[in-house]
Amino acid sequence: MTSPLRLGIIGLGTVGIGVVKIVQRHGAMIAARAGRPVEITAVSARSRQKNRSADISAYGWEDDPVAMARREDVDLVIELMGGEDGPAKASVEAALDAGKDVVTANKALLAHHGQALAERAEAAGRALRFEAAVAGGIPVIKALGEGLAGNEVLRVMGVMNGTCNYILTRMESAGLSYETVFEEARQLGFLEADPELDVGGIDAAHKLSLLAALAFGCRVDFDAIELQGIGAIATHDIRLARDMGYAIKLLGVAQMTGRGLEQRMTPCLVPEHHPLAQLDGGTNMVVIEGDSVGQIVLRGAGAGEGPTASAVMGDVIDIARGMRLPVFGQPATSLVAAPPAAVSTGAQWYLRMVLLDKPGALAKVATLLGETGISIDRMRQYGHDDAQAPVLIVTHKASSDDIRHAMAALPGTGVVVGEPVALRIEEV
Amino acid sequence: MTSPLRLGIIGLGTVGIGVVKIVQRHGAMIAARAGRPVEITAVSARSRQKNRSADISAYGWEDDPVAMARREDVDLVIELMGGEDGPAKASVEAALDAGKDVVTANKALLAHHGQALAERAEAAGRALRFEAAVAGGIPVIKALGEGLAGNEVLRVMGVMNGTCNYILTRMESAGLSYETVFEEARQLGFLEADPELDVGGIDAAHKLSLLAALAFGCRVDFDAIELQGIGAIATHDIRLARDMGYAIKLLGVAQMTGRGLEQRMTPCLVPEHHPLAQLDGGTNMVVIEGDSVGQIVLRGAGAGEGPTASAVMGDVIDIARGMRLPVFGQPATSLVAAPPAAVSTGAQWYLRMVLLDKPGALAKVATLLGETGISIDRMRQYGHDDAQAPVLIVTHKASSDDIRHAMAALPGTGVVVGEPVALRIEEV
Repeated sequence: MTSPLRLGIIGLGTVGIGVVKIVQRHGAMIAARAGRPVEITAVSARSRQKNRSADISAYGWEDDPVAMARREDVDLVIELMGGEDGPAKASVEAALDAGKDVVTANKALLAHHGQALAERAEAAGRALRFEAAVAGGIPVIKALGEGLAGNEVLRVMGVMNGTCNYILTRMESAGLSYETVFEEARQLGFLEADPELDVGGIDAAHKLSLLAALAFGCRVDFDAIELQGIGAIATHDIRLARDMGYAIKLLGVAQMTGRGLEQRMTPCLVPEHHPLAQLDGGTNMVVIEGDSVGQIVLRGAGAGEGPTASAVMGDVIDIARGMRLPVFGQPATSLVAAPPAAVSTGAQWYLRMVLLDKPGALAKVATLLGETGISIDRMRQYGHDDAQAPVLIVTHKASSDDIRHAMAALPGTGVVVGEPVALRIEEV
Repeated sequence: MTSPLRLGIIGLGTVGIGVVKIVQRHGAMIAARAGRPVEITAVSARSRQKNRSADISAYGWEDDPVAMARREDVDLVIELMGGEDGPAKASVEAALDAGKDVVTANKALLAHHGQALAERAEAAGRALRFEAAVAGGIPVIKALGEGLAGNEVLRVMGVMNGTCNYILTRMESAGLSYETVFEEARQLGFLEADPELDVGGIDAAHKLSLLAALAFGCRVDFDAIELQGIGAIATHDIRLARDMGYAIKLLGVAQMTGRGLEQRMTPCLVPEHHPLAQLDGGTNMVVIEGDSVGQIVLRGAGAGEGPTASAVMGDVIDIARGMRLPVFGQPATSLVAAPPAAVSTGAQWYLRMVLLDKPGALAKVATLLGETGISIDRMRQYGHDDAQAPVLIVTHKASSDDIRHAMAALPGTGVVVGEPVALRIEEV
């Protein structure tokens, strides 16, 4: 295995250029580790002329990503274009069909077409690897699929969208509203063109669906994820949660239960002393719980040129070394279609609502909760200037179904102003 | 590759029994992930009759570990006996010479004979893997050698001895002396038969030497590690450090500098908001800094039946899948003998000493430090009942050499009572 591994890179945005830089800077080191040289043969992007921070003049050029995927002088195609369909999908399929290995950072593509692509790769005897698709530079796909492969995974959790985490931590540290910080984040260029991908939790849910498939040996099932963005979180929710010893995070959780596979990407309260609560800004964290290993916590930069390119190169070096593992840790044809859990695991909940300041308002809410089977652990009513009283309730363990019913019934009491908020308190 | 992988386990202590339990409990899961069944053929330990928490009656038995290593019906030998020489070394060598792959949790063996064993394994074309030797269940060998292989590693740090971390955190939380907590730890069975392996930092230094070899592509050089145990730490050091916003940890640091390879395992002050400072009891943490990825933090149980057996099984499944990587990430014959850095990277230091309570005592110390080239950032003198005054000094950046000289010269001032303590403040 001393023949060079020849790379074709599709997409020369931040990550693509990061990969070019690593290959250019560390040729000798990579050859020593991979056991053979790793070279870039050709690149493809929207514009050849664009000013880039790396010199790509020595490489072949393709305007058409699919033509790139079929080049005879390329062994491994690195797909960094993004997008769940279109040219990204076409070029990955073309590369696998042409007998090439593929490395991708494209979580949307795999969240929607992971099963079909895995079957295609394995039928062709090629690798399809995606470390860079989840949690940036953190080698979590490798940890889950290889290092911890002797474990039955009990739960995987993660804070995997740096933008949401930036917004939530900034709301707290600066005491600013969601709307203000959202606008800040937009101006800083932290938001995707469609911001719902970030703040709606979709991007993070893409990642969670891949972790779940790997952890539980099941088919990627993005559509089954219970999804809730961070748009309903108010600055005083963060403050109230902190008062009780919790931080609010957009937390992804996947666990296999007797009722099926539970996958959620929702804002949750986590105890402030847990590493998950201590995560600032763009840092990501993934927590893996295995029956033998206990709790493993992995933390690092979740995005950016260097970290994401590092993840791509980890996959490239694995392939250069001859590693050919099943895409999701076991043959794709053996992955089961896990039934989604209709009801999520019981938990304590944080409920925040504003009540009309009139006699019996609180009693009406308490009665309703009791009738829905929800019992109250703690309740606080806050001082107020006008005729409205903010109320915070922490429930005893309740099912997500009961909480949903209660939330739907609350307006009917006639004493609740505006939208009440319910956030799960995750046991970590 | 559907023929079973046949394991021979040498050593049936906590970890060995943990491995037996995983194989027995998760046969189908492991076969699906490994692409072939993984079976135990034979086991070896000191006593066959001992009462164990797993049934080993179905397996062959060997009294002699070397005979076990040569059994025809074993493909992979798992060495869990421990000890840097003797039967552990003999059986690993015999297994490699007999063409078998080896998985070991034996950090002492590899710290002292890693280079020779790696050359032997690679000459035989066999795997020699040791995830379980470093940081228990945390897949750090895999992260460093594979996932982050596209990085030039800048620094590796770790808290990797749970016993030391237990003692330090318990001294702080209960306000007890080192001696008292040491005795507690002994009674809880947390200490090795030779406690210096733990509290002297030797066990953790074994681990550090392996991380350094992998991180920097150099030969294991345990003897070059600057080593200092936790025995000199007083309860009020921990309190004083906390007052200044630091925690004291037995911290391993390896970094490649212009002056050579720096390896230290010493008690250090780390900022209390860094994850390293927030580590309690037996939990381990490894921090890897790469030129592309930035800082990656890995946290998990550093010892125990389940976590360590999980690490062993990760290696076993890799081998079952056909992975054959060089032991230290690149061919052993290409590993360089890195010259040890004579002087460690400059740092701020915490100096604590007791001075005679007489005029000019503090001035004498300050003068001496100044003459040694050490300038003072902060100084605090504490209230006292008798004629002795505890003094705490935080220096500006100084070399370890200058600190050593100053500490050696302090008694000559005639104003210092007892042993002064110098602890490095690590920048993290």
